[in-house]
Amino acid sequence: MALALGRPEVISLAAGFTDPETLPVEEAKELLDAMLSEHQSGRAALQYGTTKGDPALRRLTAERVRALDGQPPEAPAYSPDRMIITNGSQQMLYMISEALCDPGDIVLVEDPSYFVFLGILQSHGLEGRGVRLQADGLDLAHLEAILERLKKSGELRRLKLLYLVSYYQNPTGTTTVFEKKLQALQLLERFERSAGHPIYLLEDAAYRELPWTSSQLGESRLRSSRAVRGRERRVIYAGTYSKPFATGARVGFCFLPEPLLTAVLRIKGNHDFGSSNLLQQLLARALGSGAYERHLEVLHRRYAYKAQIMEKGLQAYLPKTAVWQRPEGGLYFWPRLPRRIQTGMKSRLFQAALANEVVYVPGELCYAEDPTRSKPRCEMRLSFAAAPEADITAGLERLGAAVRSVG
Amino acid sequence: MALALGRPEVISLAAGFTDPETLPVEEAKELLDAMLSEHQSGRAALQYGTTKGDPALRRLTAERVRALDGQPPEAPAYSPDRMIITNGSQQMLYMISEALCDPGDIVLVEDPSYFVFLGILQSHGLEGRGVRLQADGLDLAHLEAILERLKKSGELRRLKLLYLVSYYQNPTGTTTVFEKKLQALQLLERFERSAGHPIYLLEDAAYRELPWTSSQLGESRLRSSRAVRGRERRVIYAGTYSKPFATGARVGFCFLPEPLLTAVLRIKGNHDFGSSNLLQQLLARALGSGAYERHLEVLHRRYAYKAQIMEKGLQAYLPKTAVWQRPEGGLYFWPRLPRRIQTGMKSRLFQAALANEVVYVPGELCYAEDPTRSKPRCEMRLSFAAAPEADITAGLERLGAAVRSVG
Repeated sequence: MALALGRPEVISLAAGFTDPETLPVEEAKELLDAMLSEHQSGRAALQYGTTKGDPALRRLTAERVRALDGQPPEAPAYSPDRMIITNGSQQMLYMISEALCDPGDIVLVEDPSYFVFLGILQSHGLEGRGVRLQADGLDLAHLEAILERLKKSGELRRLKLLYLVSYYQNPTGTTTVFEKKLQALQLLERFERSAGHPIYLLEDAAYRELPWTSSQLGESRLRSSRAVRGRERRVIYAGTYSKPFATGARVGFCFLPEPLLTAVLRIKGNHDFGSSNLLQQLLARALGSGAYERHLEVLHRRYAYKAQIMEKGLQAYLPKTAVWQRPEGGLYFWPRLPRRIQTGMKSRLFQAALANEVVYVPGELCYAEDPTRSKPRCEMRLSFAAAPEADITAGLERLGAAVRSVG
Repeated sequence: MALALGRPEVISLAAGFTDPETLPVEEAKELLDAMLSEHQSGRAALQYGTTKGDPALRRLTAERVRALDGQPPEAPAYSPDRMIITNGSQQMLYMISEALCDPGDIVLVEDPSYFVFLGILQSHGLEGRGVRLQADGLDLAHLEAILERLKKSGELRRLKLLYLVSYYQNPTGTTTVFEKKLQALQLLERFERSAGHPIYLLEDAAYRELPWTSSQLGESRLRSSRAVRGRERRVIYAGTYSKPFATGARVGFCFLPEPLLTAVLRIKGNHDFGSSNLLQQLLARALGSGAYERHLEVLHRRYAYKAQIMEKGLQAYLPKTAVWQRPEGGLYFWPRLPRRIQTGMKSRLFQAALANEVVYVPGELCYAEDPTRSKPRCEMRLSFAAAPEADITAGLERLGAAVRSVG
């Protein structure tokens, strides 16, 4: 794949990069210029900060998440003291796995889930178990059945975590509504006694601020699990400014309950003492000045437009047997082909697509190695984010031809 | 300590921060401005890069280390392909420990060594064994004796790594000369057969570019272990731009032999996919434009000046029984007091110093938990880097009074 992506004539519908057109070059220039024009703020930006992260950025971020969740000021679940700034949300996913899990432990993930997180699980010797998805998110009946099964088999003591990409999920675009997060937390609580330890919900809200309609941001059905009363001590909430602002800045954030906060801070201290102050202060200025908010609106319009182009292309070029659910935001579509058409890296389709100079992410890469079910092998993740408009359409045309050639 | 450092009236001779006066605010402003004034370079800076790191930065950095080592162009030990860019050199230390060592393994470190690395060892369940230092660096006879002892006790199979802070060491200021690096590598090679696996030298060159005389940079006695012919496959070389440019930028780099390079790249992919592109391109521009080189000369003069102030203060205010070796660079002095005067966090001296409103790093924190020797407890690390000139002198006067009050 890396080889294919190196060939300029190949159209990639695989990459989850943000659209280069939308990157806030002008905004970043102005903000950095202002920061470095004053000695005091300039020096502060170029000096070490704290392991936990810049206080102003934590305050502005905590405040922002609280407002998105429609919660009153001073709500304790949104205290900046509970927040750590990280190198993208990726680093947080890594540190939480390290802090919380021992080799052989089980982590519940969506089926399918974010493939980089699945890689982290593997590298830590952890087993993923897939919870099915429905149109409005996590399948709670399936979650309950899995928990019951783990209880019966005595494996519940190895379960520490449910990982949920809750908004416009990578890879399927599915959103899990607030009501389901609440019920999932209640379910986990019910099984804690048998587990003999806390079972956490890790909500990865990476795509939260990328709906295709700006007004969605405030909707109450889209509140996060931090807003579930009385369960803050079981909720880890990870967010990022990579996708909604600049992937090149790599600034993420996370609300953590104790004792996880202390454990993760220790790991962060060993990793790198704390994230780059320069980048943190760039983000704090973007938030404080309103530039971030204005940039989000540009992004929403742009991604809505490109999503529409992709949807039209899917309708025009994929066979009628291909099905997908239209997301409300994010960067991805997730078409499913008839079962006889496999999409894996070694499949005839993938090779035909490559010959036609288009690549996608094979769906099977997004499924955990879960011994309790067989992996679907006829899906694909398509992203419209990085490709220029014309390439989206041309890429789908090539892909459609590839599907017909093997179907 | 954190509490004490929060009180503005307390003078810290503890912090290893760079001097705020020297931070290249103006240079960073100009470089970022140029980068973000053009669409193409601006977008590249704000987009994801590769896990390995920006090619231009790797090329310029590899070239720079090669030149410092006095090696011919195209010397294979300095290929940019062998280099990974990291979040400060700290992240590399962490990843190497993770890639190379299993819990219970032994790592050889200088006695004393960099305390944050000792923390990483502890967090990975690794045992440190201290190799004594001499005026010109590592005590090779002691290194050999330790290797012999490990061989006899059957523990050699648990030894993977010798960690060496080779230039103006943190905490003692000691430099290990090239000839000793060469001999240390030969020693490690001799014991590899009994170990049954490679034993690597990890050279942490964090302070290499901070001599107090610019001309030292090119001296052949100060070459790195990468310059030892035929041993590149056992040498890991870690450097950083944090100390010589901007701690707030957190850009480090490392030359790695295979199969470590592949293993560390996989871990880096799980940590964060790669370091911030914006920061990497800032450094690449600093190197390419000559701004970095000019900034180094400013730093050298500044630190030489502040080191002189500290040395005068030590001579004026510490009792004649205090001894230290004058470093040739770096940020630290390491005075040793008479054995009866303990310096630990709970010692009378530390408490007296705190009452006098001055803090230092207790020397015992810099010693590994090595069961084969008792820790010296009468040393301290003093840094002149972050404190203003007047505070260095005033701090040492307070410290001297504290020493006399308990002596």
